[in-house]
Amino acid sequence: MEQASAGDVSGPARIARAGEGIGEDELALAARNHGLPLEALRYDVTPPGLHYVLVHYDIPDAEADGWSLTVGGLVRTPLSLGLDALRAFPAVTRRVTMECAGNGRARLTPRPVSQPWLVEAVGTADWTGVPLSLVLERAGVRSDAVEAVFSGADHGVERGVEQDYRRSLPLPYATGEDSGVLIAYAMNGLPLPPQHGYPLRLVVPGWYGMAHVKWLRDITLVDAPFTGFQQSVAYRFRRAADGPDDPGEPVTRIAPRALMIPPGFPDFMSRTRIVRPGRVRVRGRAWSGHGAVARVEVSADDGLTWSRAEVAAAQPHPWAWQAWSWVWTAAPGRHVLSVRATDTEGRTQPLEQPWNRGGFGNNAVQRVHVLCV
Amino acid sequence: MEQASAGDVSGPARIARAGEGIGEDELALAARNHGLPLEALRYDVTPPGLHYVLVHYDIPDAEADGWSLTVGGLVRTPLSLGLDALRAFPAVTRRVTMECAGNGRARLTPRPVSQPWLVEAVGTADWTGVPLSLVLERAGVRSDAVEAVFSGADHGVERGVEQDYRRSLPLPYATGEDSGVLIAYAMNGLPLPPQHGYPLRLVVPGWYGMAHVKWLRDITLVDAPFTGFQQSVAYRFRRAADGPDDPGEPVTRIAPRALMIPPGFPDFMSRTRIVRPGRVRVRGRAWSGHGAVARVEVSADDGLTWSRAEVAAAQPHPWAWQAWSWVWTAAPGRHVLSVRATDTEGRTQPLEQPWNRGGFGNNAVQRVHVLCV
Repeated sequence: MEQASAGDVSGPARIARAGEGIGEDELALAARNHGLPLEALRYDVTPPGLHYVLVHYDIPDAEADGWSLTVGGLVRTPLSLGLDALRAFPAVTRRVTMECAGNGRARLTPRPVSQPWLVEAVGTADWTGVPLSLVLERAGVRSDAVEAVFSGADHGVERGVEQDYRRSLPLPYATGEDSGVLIAYAMNGLPLPPQHGYPLRLVVPGWYGMAHVKWLRDITLVDAPFTGFQQSVAYRFRRAADGPDDPGEPVTRIAPRALMIPPGFPDFMSRTRIVRPGRVRVRGRAWSGHGAVARVEVSADDGLTWSRAEVAAAQPHPWAWQAWSWVWTAAPGRHVLSVRATDTEGRTQPLEQPWNRGGFGNNAVQRVHVLCV
Repeated sequence: MEQASAGDVSGPARIARAGEGIGEDELALAARNHGLPLEALRYDVTPPGLHYVLVHYDIPDAEADGWSLTVGGLVRTPLSLGLDALRAFPAVTRRVTMECAGNGRARLTPRPVSQPWLVEAVGTADWTGVPLSLVLERAGVRSDAVEAVFSGADHGVERGVEQDYRRSLPLPYATGEDSGVLIAYAMNGLPLPPQHGYPLRLVVPGWYGMAHVKWLRDITLVDAPFTGFQQSVAYRFRRAADGPDDPGEPVTRIAPRALMIPPGFPDFMSRTRIVRPGRVRVRGRAWSGHGAVARVEVSADDGLTWSRAEVAAAQPHPWAWQAWSWVWTAAPGRHVLSVRATDTEGRTQPLEQPWNRGGFGNNAVQRVHVLCV
């Protein structure tokens, strides 16, 4: 009965009408969550306050003292680990680029009504913690387990369902050393900031942000695929033609994307860029959750012709974005700069994004309006 | 001729049409700037990534090494001070609540088109630096100086005017010890984050954010009131009836405001709160740039009746927000909670905000929708 009542203030997913501007509900999300100001692509490692943030419910009032991570379900030895116990494991630091699955949502037509990202929901950090595989090894995963379910302390209602934020990963992915999954307690060498999961979060290199469960407090091993809200209702690719009962495809790894630091300087309101004529070095970052970036191309004529940019090596940080740069000779007039990445698996960014109902994975190429004067 | 061309991509200030949703230009600002997630009102001192941020143009690519602050104009001894020279002055730490002058803009009807804040553009930090008065004393301000003009490194175009961000303060306010103005190089004990002005910014306790010039690189003493864009065009209170040539009143000190931590837990999309029946302690913060907060009142019936909250003392941090709390006995059903502050000068928050064309100083009371189930 309580859930039914909460449902009264928690509507179903909705698609904006043609021409409908951003509503106050979307604006309230945009005011609390935030993206990376694109000039901050200049930093190899994003300062925490510039890294994108998406919080489904509230940032929990968490204290490291007394926090414990429980590991249970289909394990031989259930665990309850405090921060000190986790720090006693061998620590690993991984540089990981994280992106929200909803990045680009507000550029879809029609627009799925949710957090209205344009292109900026990304960031890169050095995450320090314990490999998940070591913790699961200590607990002793039973052979009948097929998934690990991760619960965060973030509590709320979403589309009528009251929940703690919860997601799963399949075994052996969760236990595989190659997957690089961490239980992280530090970001860029400091305790996690509150909005990034203090005191503990999951880091799943190469996956969109929804997998990196923040304020992590429980891991439960289960013998069937998890069907919780964030797994089977949200974060699915469903096309326009699919009915609401269509399960869709799960959202998992990050599609390739390149972004540029908008060159020159901006107009306050339109964010149009002003550059001087002549040689302009255009820089940015590119990444893919499916492997390294093989190629970055830049266009200065709104996608008619493309030139290859120089791209830095993926090593020694295979899960982090790669820097790229290209020299443009700017002539007076108006221009549209674009950039697109292609990864080693041959995935490339589209010029037109196929639509999906949740507004996920829109990696259509960035377009930057520039006036050269 | 360059300014005329830049003006082609930099339109005049605009008021949204009736019913016009938030546009992509406003959304682009909302995605890069961000407010305080209201649950973060729980922290006495706001972690940097949760403190509100408003950047007019780009975050400059600033390095502390080689940064110098010049002090010139009507002084006896022009100065050029590096970070080490500034750190050699006696350091002062002040806890200051900062709020954007445009906070509340998106709730005005009609809506001035600019950064679309709802109520969350606020934060409190411990700022460490040199009292401005000491630096000006060393430079020796000449008796014909009437204002100090502060220039930041943030460069862009705004309403057709290319500019470095620049604001002034009147003398003797700038030199007065009581005003508490700092040249800050640390926030919460660490170097300033890039988005908060690294390596140097002005902090003007009690004033809206536009006065706290970030990326500070020059102070010039002048013999006439400064008429630059941010002083005489932007940041003025102009009423609907005033013509575009009306100078309006300058935006200066922060009007009183109280905000509550929304109780219970949220619905993801509507942000409506869910609470359980019974005793609910409602907490929050209140502040005014005109003096201490004398009274905080809370309403649980959408403003029909008001109850006094307990308010913490303004000391020992006279420029910081004050905590307040109140106990609400929640009964099943829908409720609207509101809170309003009154300062020691008798200023109180309005239930209906008088309109102004820039959308400044909208301190109308916060309304929080709550469902008790």
